[in-house]
Amino acid sequence: MKDVDIIISGGAVLTLDSGNGLIEKGFVAVKGDTIVGVGSGNGQDCCRAARLIDASRSIVMPGLINGHTHAAMTCFRGMADDLKLEDWLNNYIFPAEAKNVNPELVYWGSLLACAEMIRSGTTTFCDMYIFEEETARAARKAGMRCLIGEVLFDFPSPSCPTPEEGLSYTRRLLEQYDDDPLISVIVEPHALYTCSTELLKQARALADEFTAPLGIHLLETAWERKSLEEKLGIGAVGYLDNLGFLNERFIAFHCVALSDADIRLFAERGCSVIHNPESNMKLASGVAPVQEMIDQGVVVGLGTDGCASNNNLDMLQEMDIAAKLQKVHRLDPAVMKAERVVSMATSVGSRALGLNGFVGSLKEGMKADIIIIDCNQPHLTPLYNPHSHLVYAAKGADVKTVIINGRIVMDNRLILSFDEQEAMDRVRRIALGVQKSLERRAP
Amino acid sequence: MKDVDIIISGGAVLTLDSGNGLIEKGFVAVKGDTIVGVGSGNGQDCCRAARLIDASRSIVMPGLINGHTHAAMTCFRGMADDLKLEDWLNNYIFPAEAKNVNPELVYWGSLLACAEMIRSGTTTFCDMYIFEEETARAARKAGMRCLIGEVLFDFPSPSCPTPEEGLSYTRRLLEQYDDDPLISVIVEPHALYTCSTELLKQARALADEFTAPLGIHLLETAWERKSLEEKLGIGAVGYLDNLGFLNERFIAFHCVALSDADIRLFAERGCSVIHNPESNMKLASGVAPVQEMIDQGVVVGLGTDGCASNNNLDMLQEMDIAAKLQKVHRLDPAVMKAERVVSMATSVGSRALGLNGFVGSLKEGMKADIIIIDCNQPHLTPLYNPHSHLVYAAKGADVKTVIINGRIVMDNRLILSFDEQEAMDRVRRIALGVQKSLERRAP
Repeated sequence: MKDVDIIISGGAVLTLDSGNGLIEKGFVAVKGDTIVGVGSGNGQDCCRAARLIDASRSIVMPGLINGHTHAAMTCFRGMADDLKLEDWLNNYIFPAEAKNVNPELVYWGSLLACAEMIRSGTTTFCDMYIFEEETARAARKAGMRCLIGEVLFDFPSPSCPTPEEGLSYTRRLLEQYDDDPLISVIVEPHALYTCSTELLKQARALADEFTAPLGIHLLETAWERKSLEEKLGIGAVGYLDNLGFLNERFIAFHCVALSDADIRLFAERGCSVIHNPESNMKLASGVAPVQEMIDQGVVVGLGTDGCASNNNLDMLQEMDIAAKLQKVHRLDPAVMKAERVVSMATSVGSRALGLNGFVGSLKEGMKADIIIIDCNQPHLTPLYNPHSHLVYAAKGADVKTVIINGRIVMDNRLILSFDEQEAMDRVRRIALGVQKSLERRAP
Repeated sequence: MKDVDIIISGGAVLTLDSGNGLIEKGFVAVKGDTIVGVGSGNGQDCCRAARLIDASRSIVMPGLINGHTHAAMTCFRGMADDLKLEDWLNNYIFPAEAKNVNPELVYWGSLLACAEMIRSGTTTFCDMYIFEEETARAARKAGMRCLIGEVLFDFPSPSCPTPEEGLSYTRRLLEQYDDDPLISVIVEPHALYTCSTELLKQARALADEFTAPLGIHLLETAWERKSLEEKLGIGAVGYLDNLGFLNERFIAFHCVALSDADIRLFAERGCSVIHNPESNMKLASGVAPVQEMIDQGVVVGLGTDGCASNNNLDMLQEMDIAAKLQKVHRLDPAVMKAERVVSMATSVGSRALGLNGFVGSLKEGMKADIIIIDCNQPHLTPLYNPHSHLVYAAKGADVKTVIINGRIVMDNRLILSFDEQEAMDRVRRIALGVQKSLERRAP
């Protein structure tokens, strides 16, 4: 008989361990930050728990992993939509960022993002933005697991006037969060069209020095592919290969315009891709060749992108759209089955971020990142198949309880780790300033 | 000073009347089943209300209109997904229907659908199925507005052994619901590939006799287009035109494979189309030429289709996907703007169903079908633009209060008109039988 802190029992347990195993009536036991038992039954024949969580009529599963976002951009959610890309970027997003982004905006915007992510079942996110120290502070406050990356590019950012300062900022993050239980650091040059070869080399060297993941926006559109080829005189993926980027720590965001040869090279080198279908749809970037990547063995996770281009951080909706988009694009309802999509948001997503062995499945020894989805609701009734419901019917608001690293951060829809009303109020105040800054420049 | 039953105030009011008018802080007053006042301010200078509803930090708007569904198919939600169309239909849906569909399944499945629809802000739905008398009973119980249509085809259905009986069933419905305040009847032959010319002629004659709407599944796939041309020796739309279908009471569901000439003819004749993007994606049917239809002046509403092919009835999600799918399909982020999509689910949707003048906008004299969406939530913060939030960020679960025909059917997420737990329990029991019936036929 083991003494444990929490037993969750009474529901269907989706372990996502070996073949997306489903335990129809199972339990998960947690001690400290770790899963110490998973099995069928209620667990009370092997464990004595300080707290029992009833998961009747619920699905118990690993927390969702949002592989690519810009958390603080919640502050710009719905500020500008339905515009041609250049108009959107040059007349709205860039000026709004230049005039408004500061540590305060990043902290409160990120904390608001944490509220939204926790409420919709995300326990880990991989972020790229500026003043990422503030995003780390927000994630720590919220109790979320994350990878944070200060964006690197050739031009001045509100946090780093030069690329060198961006690299130093990243180095400081790498040192500071070296052995943090929840926060780790990713080196993140923005994109090939915004970073010099020199900056990319230095970014790679920094990632190598710390054995850190290295992420970049890559081939988000066919236009990007073409213009990079013209500028570099070589394909984008070949160029990255020459720079030594393509290894198992490399994570490429978007990859809408990846060629078959690129995909084969990615698979050979063990690179990961984060697919962001809603953003790709809303910005009209195109449809990523996800099925081809998976067929070739590329590790493909799922992300929401930021709230300026989605405009939400709900991974359950992202899963639904990931499945449906591939089906209609390929005119084949049998591609991107629900089981596949669930794994992209959990076990495969954790591999994509280099967190496999820690999170992404429910298994003894893994960190306790667990969510409980309440299926006693009209839109989740009846329940023939948990995978189907997770992808095609469940919504963020169905997530009842969220445990991260053994800590209950949301219990029965109540966020326990911080005051979400304060985050909302602060972001509303920040948004008034954003709106004024945009009005001032209107013709 | 008018005496009224309800005043809703304190929120942003989206009237959807002339140019999608937005009143930043407005009120709506209701007396009996009718809207008797809409304006800015709190309405208390003109009306004295028995009940005040506080809509602070909320959006007040017309109830959503689901233009095409098969409500009772909630009973088959998630029973079979990710299959090739023939396998899905012939080995799962058709056998499950043949063995299980009876009045009880249709009543409880429809009532469960009403729960899901009310919870996600739908106040009107247009249904097609069998035993539609039971769907009407469920809608009446739930207090929902609907068009019901007994499906007509050449082969026996569980409710009607012959096409003639299907027509008689429909005639009885037309007579019975002639002056019902909430329920009206639509004549619904299933599709051109399942109905003889004779049946189609009789259906049209019946619709003409009662001046009723006439709806049909049409050109859901390119395959359907091609095979109909081969079978009929003429294009599907030309064939319908010859049969006298194409007028302002005609509603075509899906229309993925409509040609430019078809679209022009539809526009000329005042026909309506219901677009079902999630179903079209999940079944890999293709992408309907929605922008072309709208450009030509076709009235295009929005629907979810049934829960076997979506698998949810959430119109807010359907709106999101309707916008994003057109953008990525046309590689143009500026098409299908949020304002347009909101109108498809409300004011234009009501026109599509022939309910304009009754519902679809908030205006004095219209029926009081009103929903309140709670924006004091992380994923709806900040609020720059209500249209953007409705399409790109809001979810069904954000709907707080629903009023249909002046009656509050959901108040602060509590359904008042019926016992939704009973509906869930009954459908769970029905689903056990469905599952057994499928297992018996497994190899």
